[in-house]
Amino acid sequence: MPHFPPPGDKAALEEGLVFTPKFDRDGLVTVVAVGAEKGEVLMVAHMNEESLSRTLETGEAWYWSRSRRSLWRKGETSGQIQRVVEMLTDCDQDALVIRVEVGGDGGCCHTGRHSCFYRVVKGDHDAPARLVLAQ
Amino acid sequence: MPHFPPPGDKAALEEGLVFTPKFDRDGLVTVVAVGAEKGEVLMVAHMNEESLSRTLETGEAWYWSRSRRSLWRKGETSGQIQRVVEMLTDCDQDALVIRVEVGGDGGCCHTGRHSCFYRVVKGDHDAPARLVLAQ
Repeated sequence: MPHFPPPGDKAALEEGLVFTPKFDRDGLVTVVAVGAEKGEVLMVAHMNEESLSRTLETGEAWYWSRSRRSLWRKGETSGQIQRVVEMLTDCDQDALVIRVEVGGDGGCCHTGRHSCFYRVVKGDHDAPARLVLAQ
Repeated sequence: MPHFPPPGDKAALEEGLVFTPKFDRDGLVTVVAVGAEKGEVLMVAHMNEESLSRTLETGEAWYWSRSRRSLWRKGETSGQIQRVVEMLTDCDQDALVIRVEVGGDGGCCHTGRHSCFYRVVKGDHDAPARLVLAQ
């Protein structure tokens, strides 16, 4: 399993060329999965050290399910496997973007939509904000 | 200030048309800011109830800085104000995507880069993963 060295100082985190993911107090980093071709945001999820290791080893996205408290190979039941074309880290190495090619029907969301972000928030000054289905 | 009703059940969260953001135990939702035109991921940050309210009211991105423990009007000092063209929520309403037009020099990252995701993670079977500057 790949080894992740502990995060260094600010300069090392931001300008260094060693991957030292900064896991939060629950041992997680935030991961944004985007479509490999168009770059549209598909989902936001989390990885712990083991799921991140497996993702790097296998080239397929493994997450940590906070609700089920278990490792989660995305698409294992649905066929919507996410093949990782590229992984990027942000400046302080506590968030990742993965560009993925999606297997199965190409969708991502458990509700059946292509992306989990299928509703637009419409602000309103006096009432609760409304949601409108995205085009 | 806009009012956010408490999250409902799974069906209401996923299919409802009232915005009921699901703040975590620190009172935060995860926010992915993407460029309004091309959709590239610029940064991942967090909003608490007040910063989300201000964002909806002003049309400019306000975040909660976890490191400084304070409200943070993005771009207040740098000029890199983020004008929110569209906000989307995900299926369980604990993550948001905002499509933003960036003021000032159009950048986003405090290191001076356009995006915070300027390094690619290159996995390696036996050694720590390396980082390579993105093209």
